[in-house]
Amino acid sequence: FPVNIALLGFGTVGSHFYKLCEGRTDLHVAAVLSRRPRPELTCTVTADYDEIVRDPSIDIVVEVMGGIEPAHAFIMRALEAGKHVVTSNKAVVAAHFAEFAACALEHGVSLFIEASVGGGIPWIAGIEKARRVDEVTSFSGIMNGTTNYIVYAMLKDGADFGEVLAEAQSLGYAERDPSADIDGIDVKNKTVITASVAFDVACEKDIPVSGIRNLTKADLDLFGERGLTVKLLGRGVQQDGRYAVAVEPVAVPLESLEANVPGNFNLVTLDATTVGELKFYGQGAGSLPTGNAIVQDVLDCVRGTRAPEYDFSRGLAYDPELLRASYVIRADQAPAGSEPYAEGAWLVRDVTAASARALLDEALKTDPAAFLAALA
Amino acid sequence: FPVNIALLGFGTVGSHFYKLCEGRTDLHVAAVLSRRPRPELTCTVTADYDEIVRDPSIDIVVEVMGGIEPAHAFIMRALEAGKHVVTSNKAVVAAHFAEFAACALEHGVSLFIEASVGGGIPWIAGIEKARRVDEVTSFSGIMNGTTNYIVYAMLKDGADFGEVLAEAQSLGYAERDPSADIDGIDVKNKTVITASVAFDVACEKDIPVSGIRNLTKADLDLFGERGLTVKLLGRGVQQDGRYAVAVEPVAVPLESLEANVPGNFNLVTLDATTVGELKFYGQGAGSLPTGNAIVQDVLDCVRGTRAPEYDFSRGLAYDPELLRASYVIRADQAPAGSEPYAEGAWLVRDVTAASARALLDEALKTDPAAFLAALA
Repeated sequence: FPVNIALLGFGTVGSHFYKLCEGRTDLHVAAVLSRRPRPELTCTVTADYDEIVRDPSIDIVVEVMGGIEPAHAFIMRALEAGKHVVTSNKAVVAAHFAEFAACALEHGVSLFIEASVGGGIPWIAGIEKARRVDEVTSFSGIMNGTTNYIVYAMLKDGADFGEVLAEAQSLGYAERDPSADIDGIDVKNKTVITASVAFDVACEKDIPVSGIRNLTKADLDLFGERGLTVKLLGRGVQQDGRYAVAVEPVAVPLESLEANVPGNFNLVTLDATTVGELKFYGQGAGSLPTGNAIVQDVLDCVRGTRAPEYDFSRGLAYDPELLRASYVIRADQAPAGSEPYAEGAWLVRDVTAASARALLDEALKTDPAAFLAALA
Repeated sequence: FPVNIALLGFGTVGSHFYKLCEGRTDLHVAAVLSRRPRPELTCTVTADYDEIVRDPSIDIVVEVMGGIEPAHAFIMRALEAGKHVVTSNKAVVAAHFAEFAACALEHGVSLFIEASVGGGIPWIAGIEKARRVDEVTSFSGIMNGTTNYIVYAMLKDGADFGEVLAEAQSLGYAERDPSADIDGIDVKNKTVITASVAFDVACEKDIPVSGIRNLTKADLDLFGERGLTVKLLGRGVQQDGRYAVAVEPVAVPLESLEANVPGNFNLVTLDATTVGELKFYGQGAGSLPTGNAIVQDVLDCVRGTRAPEYDFSRGLAYDPELLRASYVIRADQAPAGSEPYAEGAWLVRDVTAASARALLDEALKTDPAAFLAALA
């Protein structure tokens, strides 16, 4: 018998998921929550969430609305009603992961979030699998396709940030308001979610975040002369009961895999005790890969092949001291404690990501175009 | 209660697996098959396989002996006795996959082979997962750490093949008899296994296989001048009910991820209908990653989170025409139908991998140092 699914949201991801289910006999979208009528759909279409959450025949709620509210309230009510939840909504998971996890445990259901990070890449399930045997000691990755597209095009075509951003917007790879991508907010959400799963912790949200808004072609040239290029990375590390996370541009060797990730692809890495370094690469966004990830989560749920239980009970302490690096800051004045790195750029040795972010904030006061990158 | 495991073979992988189980309460190695006594072990140690296969308390047989016989006979008898089998033995799986699969289905047990390809990389499980939703249309990858180590060191250090091979042997990365690695036999086994899982077919074994035995520093320079480098790849493709596979050196762009895989790492890629291109990177060999992969398979078996059922019933036809490329052959005479590519090297356009291999065989008659690479 097919499982009955309610779908909250019918944008590009939702409609692709719907189509994928239409081609299967084991999954059935029984209801779609939609403000406007959708006469093309054969299932129940309602604007009233009560109808869905009170329907005992609905087994799984798939949330692809995006945003914090009402997604947060809808997910909580679904879990409280004993329904499994599958979501692609990184903003709401990053903001309310611990609350969702506790509610799911209390009501004996599961929360599936694969589609919220890395599109079709089996990243969350990969971390969970690694943790069955190993400790995940660190992770890092290119988690945002839009900014990778921009940085890759700047490097390959020698174009400047503004040009490439405009092109990415015209291709639909970047939003009209690109802040969430280029300021690192999207990567922050994915990093918080990844750390929560990898380290089994309700991840701190007040973390250092820097983006690539101020990255110039001249910056890439400067790093290029030193055999490096810049990628926006989310990173996390745990050690001795403590952990730290950060989001920032990192200058990586040109011959690293990260440097060679093209277009809007993602590449995410974990390091674990016995399996060592594992990397996963794929389309980190897009309606087909994300729709695929949702179907995979639904299949895990239906078949019982995965039943994530996030309890975050280890009590790891957040300790920014764990993430230290040397940083290059390009600014009109030398930051405190820095030494010259190149013309107009300064090197700050062995500071925390948080301290580096504070130095950047200071630099931005006199130079709104200042830019920072960690040295890998 | 812990599950009872019999371990066939106690080499480096076997002993690491044993150690990993010692640290867990859910897995228990109850018996080890070993020709010599092992007083350091607390479990049953026997040289008599009958004792193991007739013991109804044994749930899972883990085979890490390597080689074809008696591994083949032992695996068959375990499956016939209703025991699940987990193996890291690529030679025996490549040789007898269909026979094992049919026997497992008949006796209602599962065959787990993750550790036979790609060490700790979740490659086989990743393919199986992709196939729940998609068709896997093609795969390709660096599946042999030893040859990648050699090619990478040749490229980075400008050393010649012999030097690097000797160094790899002294480090234990290469066998004293390196034929299985450098002639592509190891990759052939992994490619046959991968194709079987990806395309659901009892894969043809008479496939084109070329290795890197004759690769020289001059070859790498020749390709390097054209923005390329050489990697030994296993590849497969399926289309319209037909499939083809091959193992051969491929000249890949220097800025590809494949070109930048360092040391003895593996990088394997699948392409599937909705999820698109997925790549998996990690330690493809070594006792810790391989031991990890075995534990993961055992956990899947014990927890019911994965129960591979290979039935190979789709009846795909093997069609070498599906794998066509242009090839560079470095030889003392121009191969039939070739045109000049560089000094002493010839280009053959748009031929099958099988035809290219035949051209190489012809060239080797007069030039035992001849070398071939496909252009990606």
